Amino acid sequence: MTPSIATGKPTVSVGIDLGGTTLTAVVVDREGKRLADRTTPADVHGGPDSVISDMVELVDAVLTEASLDRKAIIGVGVAAPGPLSPSKPACRRSGRIICSANLPGWVDVPLCDRLGEALDVSITLENDGNAAAFGEFWLGAGKDGADLVMLTLGTGVGAGVILNGQVLRGHFENAGELGHMIVVHDGLLCTCGQRGCLEQYASAGAVARRAAASIERGDSSSLTEAVKNGTPINSETVVSCARAGDELCMRIWDEACFHLGVACITIQHAFNPKRIVLGGGMSEAGSFLVDRVTHHLHRQRWTLHEDLPLIVPAGLGRNAGAIGAAGLALQNRVKSED
Amino acid sequence: MTPSIATGKPTVSVGIDLGGTTLTAVVVDREGKRLADRTTPADVHGGPDSVISDMVELVDAVLTEASLDRKAIIGVGVAAPGPLSPSKPACRRSGRIICSANLPGWVDVPLCDRLGEALDVSITLENDGNAAAFGEFWLGAGKDGADLVMLTLGTGVGAGVILNGQVLRGHFENAGELGHMIVVHDGLLCTCGQRGCLEQYASAGAVARRAAASIERGDSSSLTEAVKNGTPINSETVVSCARAGDELCMRIWDEACFHLGVACITIQHAFNPKRIVLGGGMSEAGSFLVDRVTHHLHRQRWTLHEDLPLIVPAGLGRNAGAIGAAGLALQNRVKSED
Repeated sequence: MTPSIATGKPTVSVGIDLGGTTLTAVVVDREGKRLADRTTPADVHGGPDSVISDMVELVDAVLTEASLDRKAIIGVGVAAPGPLSPSKPACRRSGRIICSANLPGWVDVPLCDRLGEALDVSITLENDGNAAAFGEFWLGAGKDGADLVMLTLGTGVGAGVILNGQVLRGHFENAGELGHMIVVHDGLLCTCGQRGCLEQYASAGAVARRAAASIERGDSSSLTEAVKNGTPINSETVVSCARAGDELCMRIWDEACFHLGVACITIQHAFNPKRIVLGGGMSEAGSFLVDRVTHHLHRQRWTLHEDLPLIVPAGLGRNAGAIGAAGLALQNRVKSED
Repeated sequence: MTPSIATGKPTVSVGIDLGGTTLTAVVVDREGKRLADRTTPADVHGGPDSVISDMVELVDAVLTEASLDRKAIIGVGVAAPGPLSPSKPACRRSGRIICSANLPGWVDVPLCDRLGEALDVSITLENDGNAAAFGEFWLGAGKDGADLVMLTLGTGVGAGVILNGQVLRGHFENAGELGHMIVVHDGLLCTCGQRGCLEQYASAGAVARRAAASIERGDSSSLTEAVKNGTPINSETVVSCARAGDELCMRIWDEACFHLGVACITIQHAFNPKRIVLGGGMSEAGSFLVDRVTHHLHRQRWTLHEDLPLIVPAGLGRNAGAIGAAGLALQNRVKSED
């Protein structure tokens, strides 16, 4: 039976993904059936107050779309860019957004308290990389329940690690920040303050920046033609030219895949997951990404153990973070009932 | 009351560390009190039969030293070089040594069955890097119970990861092989088949090889004098010359510490442990190692979160593996009683 306003019993979880430019909400029931989703622009520059009230509106809208009301909510999960202090199972409302490059001006915001008060429901806050990984583990590319690591290849490289069905958080609550593994000694300066981070070489943003710099230098490429009419240089245009055989774009794409392949070897030896799930903008290239990364992973395969992870594309697209947040809210609720 | 032959009740665990050249056994009680330890040469080239019978003899000898007999044993743990198929809590005798560069000719040896039969007790088999990490977690540098990662810097780089009081094993039972993180693209060939592994740059073996190659090339160094009388070139001689101000040795040592520092950054972002424990031969240099590695870790510190791990020297010396194996045998026994 589909949950309905008529019964009013709590049967669903709502997941919200707070991005730098959009706000996505999904309604998912206990069995993982997605009942509704909706995306709106997020005005994060307007500060927490207006965004929190937008979140409340979005939750109501998406519930209405699923023919439900707030009484149907078991919990609400929020995926947000880190670093943050995530919710612990024992605490009803504890998670805070500490600060984030993608949320300018948001400093130490008690999001769980604020949103929980507005909606009168328990809020679970999670780093967006972790939430996306949990989403893929729950209902996406990793739903057989095996350990997985997810890399979200967007503006930067988000990441999350799921071991034994749990998000790995670590002693300082900030594990799985694999976009900041150092892959080039004294390499490119990263927004995090380090040099040579993976995300400076193998994100959609990095691919776009390298391509733009090459064109500016005057390197010969069909990309020049492709973007003449004002089309922006991004990872999609680079992929499209690379697919058509453009040498410069092939080289830029392959270098990103090389760094991902080497990173996957480190991930293999560190976590020994069954799968490494590739999501985010770059993953829209499908096998053009997965096959190249797998090639670079296999080129170096070691001989000591048969433990190569599978490189697989994400299964939930842009909703992974919101779905994962909904799942974590359910998991948190179960834990706090234990 | 000290456990004794008179009472005959099982009260202790015996840990054995099967190394490439030595066999170490320790007797530890439930509270972590070390009652006896003993080391003998291991003739691993003689094959499993003779080594297993040496293990039985050593267990009896170390029990006698602690005024105990076999009836006092709750369980026996064995730390062995991997890869292996470690014991699972549910299986009384399951662990096997699959193969190992350090145990030539040992192929798919059912060590737990064989040793368990001989001693009539439950055997727990664990990768030596994991066992050492668990030893440090239980009774050494990490005994406050926080997550830790241990690197054992010997001939190669062994490693183990302890999260929430458990050895991290991963989907393929081979997690935490951090000596095979790739730190130099297309770098030195490793015995594992990969190129550029950490252990080719930052193990006691790597330090010795680099120093020997430099001397052979005719580089000027006080090391030439130091080893003239037949003293071997090893990481201790390199440290001793570096401490005395020898430039070549300083450079070789610092490069190893640099690679360890960068590896610690990746470990920080991957696992977010409270501590990274450095053990093995190189760690005998004490603060001369720890301070340099910490320096290289801090040189790159990121600005997003206060989550720098502490770099600390191991606390249990050469017995960490055997002690950890004893601890894991106890932990396994508790789990199988659950």
